[in-house]
Parts: sequence; structure tokens; C-alpha cells
Amino acid sequence: MKKHPVELQIEKADKAIIAEDFDTLMDIYTDDAVLVVEPGRTAQGKDAIRKAFEAIAVYFKNGLNVKQKGMEILESGNIALVHANTVISAPNLPVTERKAAYVFCKSSDGIWQCAIDNSYGNEIVKQDES
Amino acid sequence: MKKHPVELQIEKADKAIIAEDFDTLMDIYTDDAVLVVEPGRTAQGKDAIRKAFEAIAVYFKNGLNVKQKGMEILESGNIALVHANTVISAPNLPVTERKAAYVFCKSSDGIWQCAIDNSYGNEIVKQDES
Repeated sequence: MKKHPVELQIEKADKAIIAEDFDTLMDIYTDDAVLVVEPGRTAQGKDAIRKAFEAIAVYFKNGLNVKQKGMEILESGNIALVHANTVISAPNLPVTERKAAYVFCKSSDGIWQCAIDNSYGNEIVKQDES
Repeated sequence: MKKHPVELQIEKADKAIIAEDFDTLMDIYTDDAVLVVEPGRTAQGKDAIRKAFEAIAVYFKNGLNVKQKGMEILESGNIALVHANTVISAPNLPVTERKAAYVFCKSSDGIWQCAIDNSYGNEIVKQDES
């Protein structure tokens, strides 16, 4: 089956993260994209996201691995919501699966870019008792 | 704390679902919105979404209740991704919590509308073994 262009962008992003090729990685984000660095902490804009990824690379001993194990894409006009099982590992991180959510937008020239990158998915929600 | 306008729209939608006020409910969706009716089945566009909600109301004996128990909103330009713990119940459905994801878009006149409504969240992803 032909892959959705958003899936191809995610594959490109995963390869760029593993290779620490941050120029290629930044091409995949919109100018005002938001990255959830960890629950409660976000980075917004290409500069902040690039710095976050540089710090993440060092934190994971320059050995971060990331892949997607199953993905569903919901599309409405120029917006796509991706739910994915994202598997990460590193020399100092055992294999960990996250239930990630990504929002992509299609630009006027037809390129899908990531606007919201939340590998933690629903984990960021604090339970309230109301 | 002042509520985010997206949170107010979700409150309005929940009240409209409970009251089966589908005119009000449809105002909250974009024209090409997507609703996940159940994993593997979606409804797209206001007409299809309205019919889905009418069928859902009957299926749940006209007694569907819905509320949000905790919510986080990630915003990038005119797009917002909402993660929520959505609690539903009905005469024929015990209290059930879903880890929902909603994407809202802000129109040119500043109104946030729901473009993607997936109360099942990551549950829609099929595991693959690659």
C-alpha cells in the first residue's frame, strides 16, 4: 500500500533524529511548531526545538533510536492527526513504547509539516477530581 | 484561571450532546471535520457527523452523559491539540474513561472549531510487529 506523505515525513524525521541531522529534522517542522520535551515542558519554534533535540541527543549518550510500531492518520483538509506507537531506546534507556500524537499541516505548496509533536500523548494530562 | 476558548467549546459540545441539541453541536465542527465513531469507522462532514450523533443517542437509550476529567491543550498558531480524559456513561454503559484527542482550528474570525474528534485516542492504532 502506498504510504501517506505524513508517514514518509515521520520516517524522514526518525532517520534524522538517529543521525543527529538537525538541519533535515528542522525542515519537517512548521515555524511555530510545539514539541513536548517532557510532560509539563514544551519548546516552541525551530530554534527552541533544535536546541531541545541537541540536548536530548547528549542526554541519551548520542545513541537515541526511534521507530514507529503502528500508526493511524486522521485527515481533515490541510490537517492530519497521527496516533502512533513510538518505540525509543538508547544506551541509557531500555526499549520504551510511547503512545504518541502528532499534528501535521499541509502548506500551500503541498508539503506536510509537523506543527505539534507530543510523543507522550495523553500522559501529559493531569488527573483532576472534578 | 481563565479557561481556554477551546475548553469552553468542548464544554458547550458536551452540554449539546447531553441535551441532544445537534444544531448547537454542529456549529462546533468545521465543514470537513472527522469524527471517529468507533475504531476503524469515521464520519466526515457535518451531515455525516450529525447522523452519527443521532444514531449514538438512540444506541445509548437517549441517556448519554459525557464530561472531561482533566485536559491539556497544545497550541501552535491556529491549531490546537487537546488531550483529555473523557468520561462517558449511559443507561446501558457503565462509567467509561477514554483517553481522547481533539484537534481544533481557529477560523479567520477567531472562532475555534473541532476539525478532528477522536474520543478513542491511541486505541485506534493497530499494533504491527515490524
